[in-house]
Amino acid sequence: MKALVYYGAGQQQWEDRPEPKLSAQTDAIVRIENTTICGTDLHIMKGNVPTVASGRILGHEGVGMIEEIGSGVTEHKVGDRVLISCITSCGKCAMCKRGTYGHCAYGGWILGNTIDGCQAEYVRIPHADGSLYQVPANADQESYVMLSDILPTGLEVGVLEGNVKPGCTLAIVGAGPVGLAALMTAQFYSPSRIFMIDLDDNRLQVSASLGATDIINNRDGNAAAEVMSRTKGVGVDVVIEAIGTPSGWDVCENIVAAGGNIAILGVHGKSVTLHLEHMWKRNFTMTAGLVHTSTIPMLMAAVQAGRLQPRKLISHHLGLSEMRHAYDVFGHAASHHALKVLMTNDISISGHKDRAA
Amino acid sequence: MKALVYYGAGQQQWEDRPEPKLSAQTDAIVRIENTTICGTDLHIMKGNVPTVASGRILGHEGVGMIEEIGSGVTEHKVGDRVLISCITSCGKCAMCKRGTYGHCAYGGWILGNTIDGCQAEYVRIPHADGSLYQVPANADQESYVMLSDILPTGLEVGVLEGNVKPGCTLAIVGAGPVGLAALMTAQFYSPSRIFMIDLDDNRLQVSASLGATDIINNRDGNAAAEVMSRTKGVGVDVVIEAIGTPSGWDVCENIVAAGGNIAILGVHGKSVTLHLEHMWKRNFTMTAGLVHTSTIPMLMAAVQAGRLQPRKLISHHLGLSEMRHAYDVFGHAASHHALKVLMTNDISISGHKDRAA
Amino acid sequence: MKALVYYGAGQQQWEDRPEPKLSAQTDAIVRIENTTICGTDLHIMKGNVPTVASGRILGHEGVGMIEEIGSGVTEHKVGDRVLISCITSCGKCAMCKRGTYGHCAYGGWILGNTIDGCQAEYVRIPHADGSLYQVPANADQESYVMLSDILPTGLEVGVLEGNVKPGCTLAIVGAGPVGLAALMTAQFYSPSRIFMIDLDDNRLQVSASLGATDIINNRDGNAAAEVMSRTKGVGVDVVIEAIGTPSGWDVCENIVAAGGNIAILGVHGKSVTLHLEHMWKRNFTMTAGLVHTSTIPMLMAAVQAGRLQPRKLISHHLGLSEMRHAYDVFGHAASHHALKVLMTNDISISGHKDRAA
Amino acid sequence: MKALVYYGAGQQQWEDRPEPKLSAQTDAIVRIENTTICGTDLHIMKGNVPTVASGRILGHEGVGMIEEIGSGVTEHKVGDRVLISCITSCGKCAMCKRGTYGHCAYGGWILGNTIDGCQAEYVRIPHADGSLYQVPANADQESYVMLSDILPTGLEVGVLEGNVKPGCTLAIVGAGPVGLAALMTAQFYSPSRIFMIDLDDNRLQVSASLGATDIINNRDGNAAAEVMSRTKGVGVDVVIEAIGTPSGWDVCENIVAAGGNIAILGVHGKSVTLHLEHMWKRNFTMTAGLVHTSTIPMLMAAVQAGRLQPRKLISHHLGLSEMRHAYDVFGHAASHHALKVLMTNDISISGHKDRAA
Repeated sequence: MKALVYYGAGQQQWEDRPEPKLSAQTDAIVRIENTTICGTDLHIMKGNVPTVASGRILGHEGVGMIEEIGSGVTEHKVGDRVLISCITSCGKCAMCKRGTYGHCAYGGWILGNTIDGCQAEYVRIPHADGSLYQVPANADQESYVMLSDILPTGLEVGVLEGNVKPGCTLAIVGAGPVGLAALMTAQFYSPSRIFMIDLDDNRLQVSASLGATDIINNRDGNAAAEVMSRTKGVGVDVVIEAIGTPSGWDVCENIVAAGGNIAILGVHGKSVTLHLEHMWKRNFTMTAGLVHTSTIPMLMAAVQAGRLQPRKLISHHLGLSEMRHAYDVFGHAASHHALKVLMTNDISISGHKDRAA
Repeated sequence: MKALVYYGAGQQQWEDRPEPKLSAQTDAIVRIENTTICGTDLHIMKGNVPTVASGRILGHEGVGMIEEIGSGVTEHKVGDRVLISCITSCGKCAMCKRGTYGHCAYGGWILGNTIDGCQAEYVRIPHADGSLYQVPANADQESYVMLSDILPTGLEVGVLEGNVKPGCTLAIVGAGPVGLAALMTAQFYSPSRIFMIDLDDNRLQVSASLGATDIINNRDGNAAAEVMSRTKGVGVDVVIEAIGTPSGWDVCENIVAAGGNIAILGVHGKSVTLHLEHMWKRNFTMTAGLVHTSTIPMLMAAVQAGRLQPRKLISHHLGLSEMRHAYDVFGHAASHHALKVLMTNDISISGHKDRAA
Repeated sequence: MKALVYYGAGQQQWEDRPEPKLSAQTDAIVRIENTTICGTDLHIMKGNVPTVASGRILGHEGVGMIEEIGSGVTEHKVGDRVLISCITSCGKCAMCKRGTYGHCAYGGWILGNTIDGCQAEYVRIPHADGSLYQVPANADQESYVMLSDILPTGLEVGVLEGNVKPGCTLAIVGAGPVGLAALMTAQFYSPSRIFMIDLDDNRLQVSASLGATDIINNRDGNAAAEVMSRTKGVGVDVVIEAIGTPSGWDVCENIVAAGGNIAILGVHGKSVTLHLEHMWKRNFTMTAGLVHTSTIPMLMAAVQAGRLQPRKLISHHLGLSEMRHAYDVFGHAASHHALKVLMTNDISISGHKDRAA
Repeated sequence: MKALVYYGAGQQQWEDRPEPKLSAQTDAIVRIENTTICGTDLHIMKGNVPTVASGRILGHEGVGMIEEIGSGVTEHKVGDRVLISCITSCGKCAMCKRGTYGHCAYGGWILGNTIDGCQAEYVRIPHADGSLYQVPANADQESYVMLSDILPTGLEVGVLEGNVKPGCTLAIVGAGPVGLAALMTAQFYSPSRIFMIDLDDNRLQVSASLGATDIINNRDGNAAAEVMSRTKGVGVDVVIEAIGTPSGWDVCENIVAAGGNIAILGVHGKSVTLHLEHMWKRNFTMTAGLVHTSTIPMLMAAVQAGRLQPRKLISHHLGLSEMRHAYDVFGHAASHHALKVLMTNDISISGHKDRAA
């Protein structure tokens, strides 16, 4: 089969690889129908994620069809269309029992990290019962691809950890895909005002179309001052950091209201300075952490009910065989006005007629 | 009357001052029966609290008898024995309505800060209805003095913000009075294990007598490593920082378990480094803020039920007229084996028979 | 002044009464600009509310202008336009400190119940600081009148007690004004499906226009069976009872899902049968109680942000002098297709120039 | 093997039955070392639990050693000593993913109900990974038996659903084993006062020794009046119903404070009357439901930390072969002063040397 393989910082190949095989009775083999690229994949390509070894197939998002299944899988069967969670969950360990699948003793984020991932024609999914979700027959399949990672991440790590509530004020620092996912899902809780801060006017325009009430371009570094001015010095109740840089953190610390929350959604590579000499008396809360994807069922219900249109985050449609081009588009998002790039399997698969039956 | 007056960094006088008078219809004048000194008073004496002007009477803790009362006070009357909250609450502003009295638009921490305080024979208490609590006739009055500040602070800012739960593991970094208050009140929620970390063996011994299961002297800087070793690398579920230094913060960051909480109880004067490059994926929560003293009624119930003995935090009993000596003892706590110093009014008050009637 | 006075079951007069006077320093006198009639007023007129004595001026909803104010009121001043909460809150008692204003030791629901109310040209509001809210200059004043009682009741007692959450299923039993208020505010939390059950097709059509996804007329008594059928036997996550009858309760008990919630919004006059022999193992939660109106600030923010249009609940506009007619319309709601009846002060007030100045 | 078999109302045999065999790869076969009898077993023997067919081996509590294990079990192995949860949990269905194991699509309460149970020498445990817990080498094994059902039930259905909080007042109606389990675990949350109501003076004395502050014998039917008197008419914040009768419910309804909670712990066989005409305005919450046993890990931690001694609930020690006598003792608890009856395997097992190896 064809797969996108990582060969160290800046090196990748779209090449032939053996198809995956079942290795445990709780495994499933999924034929990929749609996949996409995550900002984390770009971090990997820069060589910043040391757990990813050379030779690894990347990707942790996708929808596909089950081709083979282990004897211990009870919730899915061959021929089922499934959504792949970016988080693998055994359902048995102490962390999974608490619903904190991101810290699963046997899983967590392993796809396209410590085991081969979804940017390929086939992928092996361990602990298939806890890691796959049934896609209904009438589903908007493209929207479902956005539920593998980005929507649950925006919702769980941003909106729920930040405790967005009806009538509150909210600021999202960073209008990339995950910031936009937070923007979309924050509206489940009806904040009265949503500030969106970025450097890219296109993304800010998209933000406005998706429900932001105040868009602020921080090219002059005045965003924090602007938010404080527009809130009459009070600041905002919830701040979601969706960039992953020290300067993103600084904006958050400067605009959070007394009694407010900062939720870190960005993947950070450097330390930040926490000004406890000012903040100790502010009754603020700060949170950071992995997605568990425990909200996938709720998000599926919202999509089915027509209350969420994640496909709005898709800016480009490409074939799976255009994988290298897809990385180029997503890696230069600003010049391509790119949000999420959706790839659909366009490869004629020989010798699989028996499976397709 | 006699009062302890601050005259700039390192300067204080025990001197005659005019008695306070009612200035609003919601005021009360309280004759101090017991007061004490807070760690914050020592910060003030070092000149580190710029809101405190020269000439200010210090102190924000105490129990006393109401001598005079404004026409707008309905919950208290002359002759009532009352506990003084360190936080003044109007009960009307948006912050008070949410129960966040520490950010009261007209009050908050003002006693011994922006208005004259309790280290005196008399004190004026604004917004007396929201800022004073009735002391029952049979109460352990010395225990009640500990409810002005230190017990609610340990409970609200440490235990409740940290979300101590039955069966969890807890570490408290700093065994001074406020750390011990957190230790005592944490046991309302039955943690299975409580680590106490300090540099002073006497305070650690007190901690063990008050319920700590593991005491660790950090004189070698190995406390974090020791906690990780004793928890088999997992860390602790809740960490309460009760020192107020960057090194205290560092210990907390190093021992919090994935999914755990850090509650900042210390008053910090410097920035700290937050290692988001490690912590972004740890699903931790950090909180910091002022006490609201909204738990005073619950703490009074616990004292009345015999389930809490705050008087155990009192190491020294002195007269009010020994105020300067009390500062000396508390300011050199280690050499005096001092925890809280309780001062009782020992001054014969002439010319007040009319009031006592 | 003119006022609507209750004289026992079925008896009322629109008659001259002396204007109210300040009786405590925390009082305000408000000149009514808009008021309305509540379902509870109809209960009173049937003689079912024994706390209401003959001779009482009814009404507990309204917006008006402050005419006189006590010396102890600090948050409002003469000439301010204010929203009157149906709940009077002292802000000082233990219940108010917990935010449970409905059980205020000195207030609660007293307007138009144990003291004279708002269906008059003037009303005395005790504890004005806690019981009045500032109406912004640019506000949609008619919408604000709906915030005195019906919107906070639907939200607090129905939606919040019922714990409506994104993606959940919801049923509201009764499409009268308070049921519709629950319908509107439930959407702050983005349920995936909202069943609305009533006997009146007009109200069901209104429900559909306000966001209900499934409307069911229970004229044949099959509503419960229909809900179970449409949910494939699972039932709904949250059921809000908004009628106040045993048969309303029965529907709720029959359609709540395992693990679900029943929130009682109706005012009940009779006992109901709780089938604990079936329900003991269903992990359900039932709640009932008074509104506290603590959500008024949040609701005002939502109105100001354009996210809530309570004026949609107003079906009829009348003058204050048409009070008797207003009762007739609201008391025969079905034949008039009536929801809320808004009354506006149309009475020329002589001899008040001094006040208006 | 020997087993206690139900043969319809009032009929049981201690007889030879074939040993259970693995029937799914997620099964385990456990050799029972300790078991006990639950009040629910007495309900079954009265013929009141229609899901239990004639020929069923009863029992859903116990500790034992794993003898055989399916290929799909990963968390346990042959020779492990394990605690058996009364609730079987697949870990995969929507209910298990929410932690509501009591409603597991493939499990829930099935042991000694719809499949053979623990009152036997061996038992087959389906979904062994989710339904068994490792017993540490140094554990107090007898205390662990109490964690199969009674302690988690008292804690989850009584204390947690009832929301017992530090400083609150609590009443438990019924001092049988499950009421006592609620009493013990309620103290994790430090209520200030605990009323215990029963008809049996012995059980009330036990209650006092286990932490109740007020014991009331309801032989004259005055318990509710007595509680109201001792609380000065306020009532109690949390009421736990632990009998399962309409009269038990009536007491609860009469003593719950405004804003309080009623948690139904009893297994009810009849309807009760809910006086909504009084309660609609009381802001009370009522809960009822199955245990999920999700607190077993926390309870094990508390036992290991020495903070909980469930063995105090054991009044009688018998051999497994004395099963019929054990039913007689537990079925006539008052005359035997019986709480829980612990049975230990005293049967010499021939032909199992191969397994014991």
